[in-house]
Amino acid sequence: MDNKIKIGICGYGNLGRGVESEIAKNPDMELVAIFSRRGGNLPSGAGGNPPMVHIASAPEWQGKMDVMILCGGSKSDLPSQGPEFARLFNTVDSYDTHAKIPGYFEAVDSAAKAGDHLSIISIGWDPGLFSILRLYAGSIIPDGKTYTFWGKGVSQGHSEAVRGIDGVEGAIQYTIPVDAAMERVRSGEAPELTTREKHTRVCYVAAAAGADTKRIENEIKTMPDYFADYDTTVHFISLDELKKDHAKIMHGGNVLHTGETGVGNTQGIEFSLKLDSNSEFTASVLLAYARAAYRLSAKGERGARTIFDIPPIMLSPQEPDELVKELL
Amino acid sequence: MDNKIKIGICGYGNLGRGVESEIAKNPDMELVAIFSRRGGNLPSGAGGNPPMVHIASAPEWQGKMDVMILCGGSKSDLPSQGPEFARLFNTVDSYDTHAKIPGYFEAVDSAAKAGDHLSIISIGWDPGLFSILRLYAGSIIPDGKTYTFWGKGVSQGHSEAVRGIDGVEGAIQYTIPVDAAMERVRSGEAPELTTREKHTRVCYVAAAAGADTKRIENEIKTMPDYFADYDTTVHFISLDELKKDHAKIMHGGNVLHTGETGVGNTQGIEFSLKLDSNSEFTASVLLAYARAAYRLSAKGERGARTIFDIPPIMLSPQEPDELVKELL
Repeated sequence: MDNKIKIGICGYGNLGRGVESEIAKNPDMELVAIFSRRGGNLPSGAGGNPPMVHIASAPEWQGKMDVMILCGGSKSDLPSQGPEFARLFNTVDSYDTHAKIPGYFEAVDSAAKAGDHLSIISIGWDPGLFSILRLYAGSIIPDGKTYTFWGKGVSQGHSEAVRGIDGVEGAIQYTIPVDAAMERVRSGEAPELTTREKHTRVCYVAAAAGADTKRIENEIKTMPDYFADYDTTVHFISLDELKKDHAKIMHGGNVLHTGETGVGNTQGIEFSLKLDSNSEFTASVLLAYARAAYRLSAKGERGARTIFDIPPIMLSPQEPDELVKELL
Repeated sequence: MDNKIKIGICGYGNLGRGVESEIAKNPDMELVAIFSRRGGNLPSGAGGNPPMVHIASAPEWQGKMDVMILCGGSKSDLPSQGPEFARLFNTVDSYDTHAKIPGYFEAVDSAAKAGDHLSIISIGWDPGLFSILRLYAGSIIPDGKTYTFWGKGVSQGHSEAVRGIDGVEGAIQYTIPVDAAMERVRSGEAPELTTREKHTRVCYVAAAAGADTKRIENEIKTMPDYFADYDTTVHFISLDELKKDHAKIMHGGNVLHTGETGVGNTQGIEFSLKLDSNSEFTASVLLAYARAAYRLSAKGERGARTIFDIPPIMLSPQEPDELVKELL
């Protein structure tokens, strides 16, 4: 392919590395450069090719790439980087601070329009694929109710909260959906479910030698916002076991929508993900939407978009007539 | 709502009745008229309101409705009705003769452009929702394999084929996916599956008094195309039992996509439907895409579209900022 879509990566944590690894699965794309605050001091996947560039030099790369994939965090990176980079490049990001999305959308929209670019925000699986499934399901069966369950999977925020407790040397937290609650939803019962009824939390904790495990367990289980509203189980294991048995950042979940048509006909829609690597999957979604950003921009569209705005056909590298033949 | 989307129904079989029943779930729509070959001789749901009109009078209704939903069959109705009506109205249909979709698309596209209208073809769940799920999944995890399983559900074509056998007074056929095959797919094994390995078929047959059930069973099991490539089970029951226990035209199925990212990380995507009423669900999908057809047409778009082309946001009656707040 002569005219590959030129991709830049901004931010070289788990997500940026995921985009770097998955770009090879997309023969219509090529990685042009990786931008990071740590600049040229990092080894890149292929020994300096693509180049690792300090993020401050990004403006010099205008016109040299089609889409910049922003892989920074929603808390401290994207609120400023999202609008800044939308002025310079077409962008795709995974901004996921839900309550602040409307304001973030406005900021990116203005910047992208000012810079004559197209930006797709809040891409991934939730927000992301789960969001469009909620939209499809609710639009098709309006007389129904949508439920989202997460897990089994690792919650990074909850794992970090446990690691912050005095006497904890290492920890991981799994969010686990309650099967019985999902079965009630699938049955068409349309239950009202409390936080506690939907998910349980399980922590594996490596405590420091001599630490008071009773106290640690109690601090976890009573931690407000993170654990107090859930049934939480705490297992103490060695640091070696933690590293050996809990290395995968797996995740997933289910969107369930059950409703009624006609006279008492139950109609059930379900979408589920079971992911060995959360960051590599999110990276894969970002790459498919980078293709869409490139195409929409080439059609002359400008400003910010969400996943709701993107026609499915924009995600595929295949020709429309092939898609109709093979997938419709 | 002052400006409701004015809907017409063309064809008053199971699907047309489904659209009639489900339109009430969409407060932004109103049913204007039902068109049928049997004309004004049918009782309509609300005693003559909306009017039942002979299909030959449809051209007189130009300008009086926003979208005509074509509820005829793919074999004998839609090949002519699709293009004819696309000249007169914005249309949505459920054309599902897979091999002929490209030709049908061309015919509807030319007619819609000539008539200055917008038509969305092949809407429902397969082709339809299953098609976009195959597209999303394959675009996001390109190093993977997609499988479609149907059922448990009633296949009308297979039921009719059984009813055509001498000595059969009534019959219904269920297509049943093989759980073990789905489990192999979910495991990430990426198996090659034969037709026989994916689905089994179960028939409930009411035989005429004195009919040779051995012969009937043999004729079913050896019927080419329909049953010969499957493991088929035949149960003989009474006509009363058939009517009592097998009245629901239930259906459903699963789209599974399993692939790999990084170094051996399995990523699983699954979409499933469990439908008490196949025709009411298909009708509900048609109505959501009728909303999209209306909006695309209002934006000035003309010609034929498939489900691949339609941005998810076009399906929802809610405002974009509400959707971002509530569903993203």
